[in-house]
Amino acid sequence: MAGKLSIVMFSGTADKFIPLGVLAQAAGAMGVEVNVFVTGFALMGFTKKKNELPFPVEFAGMAPSLMEGMKKNKVAPWYDMLKEAKKLGAHVYACSMMAGVMGLAKKDFDPMIDDVVGAAAFLGKAGAGQVLFI
Amino acid sequence: MAGKLSIVMFSGTADKFIPLGVLAQAAGAMGVEVNVFVTGFALMGFTKKKNELPFPVEFAGMAPSLMEGMKKNKVAPWYDMLKEAKKLGAHVYACSMMAGVMGLAKKDFDPMIDDVVGAAAFLGKAGAGQVLFI
Amino acid sequence: MAGKLSIVMFSGTADKFIPLGVLAQAAGAMGVEVNVFVTGFALMGFTKKKNELPFPVEFAGMAPSLMEGMKKNKVAPWYDMLKEAKKLGAHVYACSMMAGVMGLAKKDFDPMIDDVVGAAAFLGKAGAGQVLFI
Repeated sequence: MAGKLSIVMFSGTADKFIPLGVLAQAAGAMGVEVNVFVTGFALMGFTKKKNELPFPVEFAGMAPSLMEGMKKNKVAPWYDMLKEAKKLGAHVYACSMMAGVMGLAKKDFDPMIDDVVGAAAFLGKAGAGQVLFI
Repeated sequence: MAGKLSIVMFSGTADKFIPLGVLAQAAGAMGVEVNVFVTGFALMGFTKKKNELPFPVEFAGMAPSLMEGMKKNKVAPWYDMLKEAKKLGAHVYACSMMAGVMGLAKKDFDPMIDDVVGAAAFLGKAGAGQVLFI
Repeated sequence: MAGKLSIVMFSGTADKFIPLGVLAQAAGAMGVEVNVFVTGFALMGFTKKKNELPFPVEFAGMAPSLMEGMKKNKVAPWYDMLKEAKKLGAHVYACSMMAGVMGLAKKDFDPMIDDVVGAAAFLGKAGAGQVLFI
């Protein structure tokens, strides 16, 4: 991989947090610098006061069997995978504009959030590396 | 950032147009060459005859407070942000294949659309730069 | 384009398979090495036993006219476009973690799937090339 992977985490349905955790942890373990920029509905997954993240309506019927499959296969929750990525050096930022729109300040976020920054600052950190929009 | 950022804008729900505007404007202001390729449902946001873009059903309950938060925080509408990006040099293209499928021709699009081109032409413009799929 | 394009195909609604096919085929035709990593709900599109992929609920009303537009414009089905991309050298991998969660093994997948691999192996194949998350 390139030296850097930056992930814009926008989607707020529960399913999308799994690839966030998996990709951040896998890239971190490969020695890649990982930066995550949380914005939009995804901010709901990073507040201190926990919100239940919705499941995409088109696949609601599959939720119970997927939950069971994840338990049976001992897949770590996304939060633990992202925490692991952070131990490997990943940084997680909340988008200042969307935090403002949602009435959220740094104190409202889970300690997982390193800082609240603007999109330009995040793009600066991303540099010429790889960028994903989830 | 790299010298070029290309955005494939496919999603058609109203929320996804905000990161389109924010990222295009922020990258443009950093001197990055920005190219946007509008396809799929996102074409509904770029017709002369305005369509009301739907809100994702999973978050429909949050729409009123988000709208209020955007007004209170004076967040510019995505259209204005993308227009600003265009002043900074960004280009916006509509996908010829999906335009054809939807029965849309160049005359049906907002003047924001510079041209109607194919996916190969767009990938050619993207070159070796960064690419996002929204 | 860069020498490599890697696509993480996560979304499972029918519409998102069109840009997968279009981008993989267009990049392949330009001599780009294409690697696709199928995970999440998108695995439902790659099983031997065919599943009907859902249409995003927000745009359900548009489905009939889009289907008609695709037929009228002779747009190839995504499966055929991806098959064409494979003839040009593309590889398609299924995510071992999510396959396990869904109770799917290599024998359950369409022959389109070259192998079942982990996220780290896929990121290794992606190298420093371009990466898209659909």
